[in-house]
Amino acid sequence: MSIVVQKYGGTSVGTPEKIKDVAKKVIRKKMEGHQVVVIVSAMGKSTDRLTELASQVSEYPNSREMDVLLTTGEQVSISLLAMALWDQGMPAISFTGSQLNIKTTSIHQKARILDIDVGKIHQELAKDKVVVVAGFQGVGKDQELTTLGRGGSDTSAVALAAKLRASCEIYTDVDGIYTMDPRKLKKAKKLSVITSEEMMEMASLGAGVLHHRSVELAHKFRVPLYVASAFDEVAGTRIVNGGSEEMEESVVTGMTSSHSDIQVTLMYLPANMNSLRRIFSEMAEKEVNVDMISQMTASQNRMHVSFTVPREDTAVAREMMEAWKVEDDVIQWEINENIVKMSIVGLGMRSHSGVAGKVFDLLAANNIEIKMITTSEINLSWVIDAKDEDKAIQVIGDGFELTDI
Amino acid sequence: MSIVVQKYGGTSVGTPEKIKDVAKKVIRKKMEGHQVVVIVSAMGKSTDRLTELASQVSEYPNSREMDVLLTTGEQVSISLLAMALWDQGMPAISFTGSQLNIKTTSIHQKARILDIDVGKIHQELAKDKVVVVAGFQGVGKDQELTTLGRGGSDTSAVALAAKLRASCEIYTDVDGIYTMDPRKLKKAKKLSVITSEEMMEMASLGAGVLHHRSVELAHKFRVPLYVASAFDEVAGTRIVNGGSEEMEESVVTGMTSSHSDIQVTLMYLPANMNSLRRIFSEMAEKEVNVDMISQMTASQNRMHVSFTVPREDTAVAREMMEAWKVEDDVIQWEINENIVKMSIVGLGMRSHSGVAGKVFDLLAANNIEIKMITTSEINLSWVIDAKDEDKAIQVIGDGFELTDI
Repeated sequence: MSIVVQKYGGTSVGTPEKIKDVAKKVIRKKMEGHQVVVIVSAMGKSTDRLTELASQVSEYPNSREMDVLLTTGEQVSISLLAMALWDQGMPAISFTGSQLNIKTTSIHQKARILDIDVGKIHQELAKDKVVVVAGFQGVGKDQELTTLGRGGSDTSAVALAAKLRASCEIYTDVDGIYTMDPRKLKKAKKLSVITSEEMMEMASLGAGVLHHRSVELAHKFRVPLYVASAFDEVAGTRIVNGGSEEMEESVVTGMTSSHSDIQVTLMYLPANMNSLRRIFSEMAEKEVNVDMISQMTASQNRMHVSFTVPREDTAVAREMMEAWKVEDDVIQWEINENIVKMSIVGLGMRSHSGVAGKVFDLLAANNIEIKMITTSEINLSWVIDAKDEDKAIQVIGDGFELTDI
Repeated sequence: MSIVVQKYGGTSVGTPEKIKDVAKKVIRKKMEGHQVVVIVSAMGKSTDRLTELASQVSEYPNSREMDVLLTTGEQVSISLLAMALWDQGMPAISFTGSQLNIKTTSIHQKARILDIDVGKIHQELAKDKVVVVAGFQGVGKDQELTTLGRGGSDTSAVALAAKLRASCEIYTDVDGIYTMDPRKLKKAKKLSVITSEEMMEMASLGAGVLHHRSVELAHKFRVPLYVASAFDEVAGTRIVNGGSEEMEESVVTGMTSSHSDIQVTLMYLPANMNSLRRIFSEMAEKEVNVDMISQMTASQNRMHVSFTVPREDTAVAREMMEAWKVEDDVIQWEINENIVKMSIVGLGMRSHSGVAGKVFDLLAANNIEIKMITTSEINLSWVIDAKDEDKAIQVIGDGFELTDI
């Protein structure tokens, strides 16, 4: 009998009523003849509530104790789901990360899964029970409780599916993967299938549906993923490893737009490699991730250099720029916080040339200035002014057939 | 260095503010030069809230899953208290029942502690940390989560103190043990000391401050107990093993009054031992606990028998009485639900005669009819009509000097 791992996120188990609905969905899958393992997140806003409690007893809550606190969130939802399953006549058993011995590194709040002992799960599946597992959590050395950090429950689900050689279904509050966040591009198309390579790229560029760690893991262990709505029955999106025959022959599969970076510009820098080397090494020392970078000659022996860094590192970047200015007062600097970084992603870009040219043309025709542009094997990213975001999304979306007509 | 186990109940940790106050109290004890282990209950009404959630997903929640659910309550409070201690500069570490391997029987929701591995506690105390432990919970076979049932956190505290050869301080929402519940007897005196024998008797007669299992455990392992207010600094009550020199020389130490029983009367029963034997065995078969019993000759070959059973067994008793009546229609029966059972307790009753006589006199002088009376080595219990309760409490309280003048 095949094993299916299903994962339900926080909003899907947000109320007792919703938990009862999830139980129905799980039972339906079981009745289709599968063995079912369910991973659940903490109910709705419970993690926020617990975090708020912590902030009321301590300004900087101890991170080990934070994990002791936060792991209760999923413990509540697994027990409630198991009860709801029993109540609907389906034998079930819940396990915390600790009970299942989901071994992780010991870094609190950012642990990584090392191994999962699935013996107990197989035992209970053999008794024809549904097994309900707490996502987002595990144990480090000495039974220390740990949590996995952002997107943790998806990662738990994929890791468990990998270990059980199962397929993995992620049920969430959106009904699949779209060419572009439908809140930003109204007529975005839902993809019936996407490759894990493309999905990884989109996730790391900020597409919010899946966390990139979980997609990477699914890619690495060749776990078939399926993303669909927890609330209705419309078909979702399959995420497959490598090309698939059913793949649509499109050059560009999806688009993202992100506000998580800012643009830093140093003008009239000495035009030699030392300047660039120094930017990178100073940023690296401060653990600031420099992403896009562009350079332009300004005058004899001087150049302009522009790069993006994460928005949360604005203060660090500002300090560094000021220090350069003090050393060499010819240098001018500016920080632009009103930018967006847009990207298009597609395996087809490997074999199709002219994608960058088409982007330039489309944007230029609409008077949108590109401030920076970079390209890698399967994505093309550019920075524009934040005020141009909506127009650019529409233009590129239509131009690359990412919208339904 | 001596180890002190402190226990704080649900209302003492009911809000983040109160948790911060508890942290202050703990730190004060540590600063006095003790090693401190703290047991906490779930915050305020959190157990009620979790139970309510369970009832919303299942009519009869699975009891194993109920324990998975309820154990989160203390896990939240231990982590918050540990954070608050760190925040106030005191190194601390929290442990769940599972992390400490508090071994219990595997009966969910009514487990009993079998053993506690205190190795981890000693390790952390040696690092000069305060150790914060989840009360009310443990683990059965295969790391199954269990809870101890009513009064469980007190039992956890006493068991831990026994194992650590420590003294045990119970901080709660009352400021000590009174001669009588002060809500019922306004001028009840607070006892500075009481023997564990008397306390056990009072607890099992319904005095609510401590659960009788925890007092029994303290008595058995000779753990010195201290009960005081979590909120203010007035002296509480010490519970000592055996007589103490400081004990006041009073005959009666305390009084209880309880509504938890009803009175069942069978009239015109055949006057032979078979009838009595049958009552006891029928009740025993149905697991109904018969408490007080009295018997009176009615006429030739017939007698009246009256006894008390727990109020929750009213329906069972009614069925049984009806069956007797069907067999022998001379028999009459009645059930009186409007009774209270009052008791006075005191080691001094061992050596003082005339206590029962004095009770009779005091009640008779006030026109209060005694329906049943029983006596054991250190207690005297009687049943009266519920409407007479207040008057009887006042009369006996004054008569045996249980009130402050």
